[in-house]
Amino acid sequence: MPEHASPNFAPWRDRLHEIIFEADTKAGKAFDVALIIAIFLSVAVVVLSTLPSAASEPYRSVFYTLEWVFTILFTAEYILRLIVVRRPWRYATSFFGVIDLLSILPAFLSILLPGSERLMVVRTLRLLRIFRVFKLTRYLSEASALREAFYISRHKIAVFMTTVLIVILIASSLMHVVEGSAQNEAFDSIPDSMYWAIITMTTVGYGDVIPVTVVGKITTTLLVLVGYSLIIVPTGILSAEITDSRRKVTTRACGACMAEGHDADARFCKKCGAVL
Amino acid sequence: MPEHASPNFAPWRDRLHEIIFEADTKAGKAFDVALIIAIFLSVAVVVLSTLPSAASEPYRSVFYTLEWVFTILFTAEYILRLIVVRRPWRYATSFFGVIDLLSILPAFLSILLPGSERLMVVRTLRLLRIFRVFKLTRYLSEASALREAFYISRHKIAVFMTTVLIVILIASSLMHVVEGSAQNEAFDSIPDSMYWAIITMTTVGYGDVIPVTVVGKITTTLLVLVGYSLIIVPTGILSAEITDSRRKVTTRACGACMAEGHDADARFCKKCGAVL
Amino acid sequence: MPEHASPNFAPWRDRLHEIIFEADTKAGKAFDVALIIAIFLSVAVVVLSTLPSAASEPYRSVFYTLEWVFTILFTAEYILRLIVVRRPWRYATSFFGVIDLLSILPAFLSILLPGSERLMVVRTLRLLRIFRVFKLTRYLSEASALREAFYISRHKIAVFMTTVLIVILIASSLMHVVEGSAQNEAFDSIPDSMYWAIITMTTVGYGDVIPVTVVGKITTTLLVLVGYSLIIVPTGILSAEITDSRRKVTTRACGACMAEGHDADARFCKKCGAVL
Amino acid sequence: MPEHASPNFAPWRDRLHEIIFEADTKAGKAFDVALIIAIFLSVAVVVLSTLPSAASEPYRSVFYTLEWVFTILFTAEYILRLIVVRRPWRYATSFFGVIDLLSILPAFLSILLPGSERLMVVRTLRLLRIFRVFKLTRYLSEASALREAFYISRHKIAVFMTTVLIVILIASSLMHVVEGSAQNEAFDSIPDSMYWAIITMTTVGYGDVIPVTVVGKITTTLLVLVGYSLIIVPTGILSAEITDSRRKVTTRACGACMAEGHDADARFCKKCGAVL
Repeated sequence: MPEHASPNFAPWRDRLHEIIFEADTKAGKAFDVALIIAIFLSVAVVVLSTLPSAASEPYRSVFYTLEWVFTILFTAEYILRLIVVRRPWRYATSFFGVIDLLSILPAFLSILLPGSERLMVVRTLRLLRIFRVFKLTRYLSEASALREAFYISRHKIAVFMTTVLIVILIASSLMHVVEGSAQNEAFDSIPDSMYWAIITMTTVGYGDVIPVTVVGKITTTLLVLVGYSLIIVPTGILSAEITDSRRKVTTRACGACMAEGHDADARFCKKCGAVL
Repeated sequence: MPEHASPNFAPWRDRLHEIIFEADTKAGKAFDVALIIAIFLSVAVVVLSTLPSAASEPYRSVFYTLEWVFTILFTAEYILRLIVVRRPWRYATSFFGVIDLLSILPAFLSILLPGSERLMVVRTLRLLRIFRVFKLTRYLSEASALREAFYISRHKIAVFMTTVLIVILIASSLMHVVEGSAQNEAFDSIPDSMYWAIITMTTVGYGDVIPVTVVGKITTTLLVLVGYSLIIVPTGILSAEITDSRRKVTTRACGACMAEGHDADARFCKKCGAVL
Repeated sequence: MPEHASPNFAPWRDRLHEIIFEADTKAGKAFDVALIIAIFLSVAVVVLSTLPSAASEPYRSVFYTLEWVFTILFTAEYILRLIVVRRPWRYATSFFGVIDLLSILPAFLSILLPGSERLMVVRTLRLLRIFRVFKLTRYLSEASALREAFYISRHKIAVFMTTVLIVILIASSLMHVVEGSAQNEAFDSIPDSMYWAIITMTTVGYGDVIPVTVVGKITTTLLVLVGYSLIIVPTGILSAEITDSRRKVTTRACGACMAEGHDADARFCKKCGAVL
Repeated sequence: MPEHASPNFAPWRDRLHEIIFEADTKAGKAFDVALIIAIFLSVAVVVLSTLPSAASEPYRSVFYTLEWVFTILFTAEYILRLIVVRRPWRYATSFFGVIDLLSILPAFLSILLPGSERLMVVRTLRLLRIFRVFKLTRYLSEASALREAFYISRHKIAVFMTTVLIVILIASSLMHVVEGSAQNEAFDSIPDSMYWAIITMTTVGYGDVIPVTVVGKITTTLLVLVGYSLIIVPTGILSAEITDSRRKVTTRACGACMAEGHDADARFCKKCGAVL
C-alpha cells in the first residue's frame, strides 16, 4: 500500500496516483511511456507547423486539429493529476506542475489573443519529463555522476571562466579601438566586439564579423589560440575528474577515529591504525 | 578439412570457398588483398568519373570501359560466391551479400534506365569489406574495444544527448520567435532554426544563417558555450572509460598476506609469492 | 598584531592596511567584495558606453557621470593604498599597483587629450584582482594546479608548438606559391597565408580567405587534418598530466609487511596496521 | 678524443667537426644556438619579402641584400660541413644534408632562372634542425613519448580512419546526387563534395560550399555529428594511451620464468612465484 494511502481517500484515486505519478507498476510504466510518446508527437506538431508549407490547406487544418487534440489530452492529464494527488497546490507549484500548465495555456490563450499559439513551443520543456520517467533506472544516476564531476571541478572551472571573461573583455576592447578606427562597422561598440570574440574563440567563425587591419588579424590569431585552451583545459580537467571518481574510495569510516577516504583494499585505518 | 566439407560437395568448391571466403591460407589472403585493391580502384573510378573533365572524350570512354571492367569482375565474383558457398540464399541475404549485389546492379540497370549509373556510388559500401578481410588480425579487436567503451558509456551519452536535443529545440524555438519577427528569412521555421542550431553548436559556423538582432546574438553566444560542452563532456566520459577498461586489475586477495591489486594474469602473489 | 606593525606607525593605518590589503578579517572581506563589485560595474559602464545608443542624450550624460564617479572612487582607493602601506613605492611599482594607476589615468588624461578616454578599457585588467581577493581560498590553489600541469607538460608542448609552427610556415609558403599564381589576392604574401593557415587549422574558418585551385583545396584538407592534432595531442597530454597529478600516492613501504601504495596522508599501514 | 679521430686526419678538422656537428661542448652549443637564430632570421626575411610593401624601394634592396647574406652564410656552412666530416657523401645524402643544400640552391638558381627565388621558402625546413640541436636534452625524449603513444594506438586509429573515409565517401556521393540535381554547382563532382565533407566534418565550415536542399541540410547535420566523433574518439584513445604509458610497469624480467610486465612494487614473480 502506497505511503500516501489513508482511510479518507478514495482507493481509485490511490490507484490512479500510482499509475500517473509512479513508474514502478506495469500500468504506471505504460502510462509514462505513452506520455513521453505523446509529448514527442506534440513537439513534432509544433515544430512542423512552423514550416511555410504548413500554412496552406489542407496541412493547416490538419496541424490545427492535431494541436487541439494534444492540448485537450494534456489538459485532461493536468486535471487528472490535480484530482488524484493529495496536495494539489504542491504539485501545481512544483517544477513539473508549472511546465505542465504552461504547455497547455498558449493554446487557450490563442483564442483570445491570436498569435500567442507561438508560445506553444514551451511544450518542448515537457520533454524534460523523460528524465523523470526513467528516474528509477540508472539514467539519472549517470546524470548525477556528471553533476558530481562538474561539482568537484567547479573551482577550477570558476578560475578558468574568469580568465576567459577577462581575455574576451581585453580582446574586445583592443579590437574595438583597432578596427573601430579603421571604419570597420562590425566593431562599432565593445558589446559588438564581444560577440565577435565569442564566435571566434569558440571556433564557430561565421565570417559575418572579420578583422580587416593587420593588427586586428594578429589579435585574432592570438585570440584563436587562447580559444583553443577553452577546449583543452576544461576537457583535461573533466577527464581527470571522471577518471578519478571511478577509482572508488570507500565511504567506510574508521570506528575509532572516524577518518574517511580509505581505499577499497584497506583493512586498517590509515590515520589511527585501528581495524576497519 | 574445413567444417563445411561433406562427401556430396565437390572438392574444388571447398578449395574455392577457402580462397574466397576465408583469409587463413596464403591463397585466401592474396584473394582478399586483390579484392580490396579492386574495390578501392572501382571507387576511385566512380569518384573521378563525376569530374567535369571526365565528361569529355577521350576520358569518357576510358571511364566507361573501366566501370564495365569492374562491374564484370564483381559480377563474376558474386556468381562465384553463390556457387561455392553451401547455403547460397543465406549469403545472398547477408549484409555483405546484399552490398555485393547492390554494387553491380546499377551498371546493368543503366542499360534500361539511363542515369541510374549514378547509384554506382553504392559501391563505396564494399569498402566495409576491409574490416572483414582483417577480421583475424587485431584490427577488429580494437574496433570492439571502442564499441565496448561506447557501450559502457551509453547511459551517460543518452542522458547527454536528450539534454542536447532539448537545448536545440528550445534555442531553435526562441530564435524562430526572436529572429522571425525581425524578418530574418533564415529563421522562417523551427526546422530551419534547428539547422542553424546544429551548425552553430558544433562550431561549424558556415555563416549562411546568422542572427541579426541583439537578443539573437546573445542567444547565439549562450548556445555556442553550451555547444562547447558537446565536445567536452563526452570526451571526458570516453577518455575515462577507455582509461578504465585498460586497468584490468582483479579483486582477488592473496590468501597468505591479504595483498590485493593483482593483475588478471597473475598466478602468484606479487607481495609474498604465495599461490593465488 | 600584523607583522608590519611598528611603534612609529599610526594604529589607524595598520587597521586600514588590514582592511584594504588583507582579506582575513570580516571588514577586509567586505572591502574586497565591494571593490570587486565596483570594478565589475565600472567595466560594465566602459563596455556599454561604446554602444551607438549611448552617444545620444540622456544616456551620454549618465555614462559620463558614472565614469567620473568610478574614477574618483578608484583614485581615492589608490591614494588610500599609498598612505596605509609601509612601502608606498614598492606597491606603486608592483603589478597590481601599476594596473590601479593605469585604470584611473585615462580619465584624467581625457581632460587634456580628448579621445584618450578610450584607454579606459584598461580598467578591465583590474578584474584580475578577483584572483587576489580569493587568494586565501582554494581558488588560487586550483589555478596553481593547472599551472603545474602546464609546467610539467612544457617540453611536450614546446616540441608540439615547434612542429605546428613549421607546418604553418610550410603550408603558408605552399599556398602562397599555388594560390598566388592563380591570382587569389588573399594569398598575396606569406603573412597573409599564415593568417589563413591559423584560421583554418584552428577550425575557425571565417571564409574570408579560401582556396580556389584544386591543389589549394587538397592542401587545405591536409592542413585541416593536421589542425585536428592541434586539439587532440595537447588535450591528451594535459588530461594525462592532470590525472597523474591527482594520484598523490607515496612510495613509502610499510616496515612490517612491506605493503606499498599508501596515500600521502596515511600514518598507519592500510594492510597490517603498523605505524608507517 | 672523438670516435672519428684518426692519425691521417688534421686535428683542426676534428675540432671543427666537434663544434659544427656536436652540441656537447660549449663551442658546439654556441654554434648550434647561433645557427638556429640565423635560420629563424632567414625564414623571417623570406616571409616578409613577400609582403606587397617589400616590393618597393628601399625595402626591396634591403631584403635582396639580406637574402644573399644568409645564402652566402649557409653556403659557407654547407661547404664547411662537407670538409670537416669524415664521410662527405654520407652527410650530403642524409636528410639534413639534402635540406641544407635545397635551402641554398634557389638563390643561385634565381640568377639563371628569375622567379625561382620563390623556392627559397624551402629554407623553412631547416627549422627542423631545432630538434636536432636539442637532441641531448629531454625535448626529443618527449617527442618520442608522443610517437610511442601514437604507435600503440595505431590500430585503433587505422580502424577509425577507415570508418571516417567511408563516411566521407558515402556522404559525398549522397550530396553529389542530392545537391547536384538541385543545380548547386558546388557539388558538381564527388571530389568537390569530398572537399565540402572534410571542411564540414572538421567543423572548419568556411561557408563557400553549403547545402541548399532540405535533404542536403539534414545530411549535413548528420555528417557534422559524425564529425564530432572525429575529435572525441581519438582524443579519448590518446588520453588513455598517455595516461597508461605513465603508469610505469618495470622492465624487470623474472630470473626463473623470464616473465615480464611486473608492477613497480612487485617483489615476487606473478607467474611463477620466484623472488624477483
